Amino acid sequence: MKIYDVEGFPNPARVRIALAEKGASAEFISVDVMGGEHRGEAFRTKNPDAGVPVLELDCGTCTSECTAITEYIDHSHGEPTLTGTSPKQRAQIHMMNKRAESGLLDAVGAYFHHATPGLGPDLETYQNAEWGQKQKEKAVATMGYLDGVLQNQDYLSGDVFTMADITAFAGLAFADFAKVDIPDNLTHLKAWRANVASRPSCGG
Amino acid sequence: MKIYDVEGFPNPARVRIALAEKGASAEFISVDVMGGEHRGEAFRTKNPDAGVPVLELDCGTCTSECTAITEYIDHSHGEPTLTGTSPKQRAQIHMMNKRAESGLLDAVGAYFHHATPGLGPDLETYQNAEWGQKQKEKAVATMGYLDGVLQNQDYLSGDVFTMADITAFAGLAFADFAKVDIPDNLTHLKAWRANVASRPSCGG
Repeated sequence: MKIYDVEGFPNPARVRIALAEKGASAEFISVDVMGGEHRGEAFRTKNPDAGVPVLELDCGTCTSECTAITEYIDHSHGEPTLTGTSPKQRAQIHMMNKRAESGLLDAVGAYFHHATPGLGPDLETYQNAEWGQKQKEKAVATMGYLDGVLQNQDYLSGDVFTMADITAFAGLAFADFAKVDIPDNLTHLKAWRANVASRPSCGG
Repeated sequence: MKIYDVEGFPNPARVRIALAEKGASAEFISVDVMGGEHRGEAFRTKNPDAGVPVLELDCGTCTSECTAITEYIDHSHGEPTLTGTSPKQRAQIHMMNKRAESGLLDAVGAYFHHATPGLGPDLETYQNAEWGQKQKEKAVATMGYLDGVLQNQDYLSGDVFTMADITAFAGLAFADFAKVDIPDNLTHLKAWRANVASRPSCGG
């Protein structure tokens, strides 16, 4: 299988971490996002939403959206599971994954693309600075929420590392890049981050 | 299990359709959203994001986010599957579900809450009308995308009804409510909608 992405970007990082956790490999194909390749007709046949990463199977089927790609990777390889096994685990992992995605990673993304120069004037063709600032507030509030969750458990969905942790970890990397600081008092979130960062899949 | 929701609201409809498709039952508990109950401390212990629906299991565990709740319902009951069985099916269903959610249902929601009076001044405490209008454009563009997908297949993820169809169907119901019309030329989307509406789970 092939992964079309940009190394170091936040959403691509989610898929690369998932692959590493599962001991799975893929052929990585670099997309020239800064040059607008993702918005061209050829790439849009793979992902009409014009984003990376995209998983392309040997049969030609393309999947975008990190949660969907992670479902593929998790179910096509063995242990450890990243998306849970019981219905209750699956529900809790998808819930926390969504909170980390929309509340943190996507919120930081909206701040970056709308309230900062983002990827530059050629790519940022619509900006709404007020919306971006509001999303920054949401991201910081989500950090506080995640810190509270981590007061009582080692990982976001309980006592094992899952897709939800990957999403939040990538979200904090994006926050660093966009200069959205983790408030000093969020000690549980910072300790969790240091622990996750020590995993080989996360560069540790 | 209990479902806290408001009958007739778009996201609650997703869970109610999933339950009906699976032949599953739940105790429904009505939340006074118009009176702000969902933003009170008691409800926030069930869902800190202050939204409906919420699934509460007999053990007290609460799950919010429709995709997560649907994962629970689908995996705790038998056939038919709503989230797929093979890794490839799961990936495609989650991808289309996310596109229908963020591109249609959530986009209509953003238009409704930001660029119309929404739920009224007591509940709409922050509005960004320009953002809402932009999201309306996104919703209509997504309708066009879905129409294209349905040119070649009966359902959004292939030849069987799945979670992705539920999300898009609820998204179109929200679009009706918010007066976001389906463009006349989207005949495949309209035919799909009529077909889905004829299912007993969808009121047919």
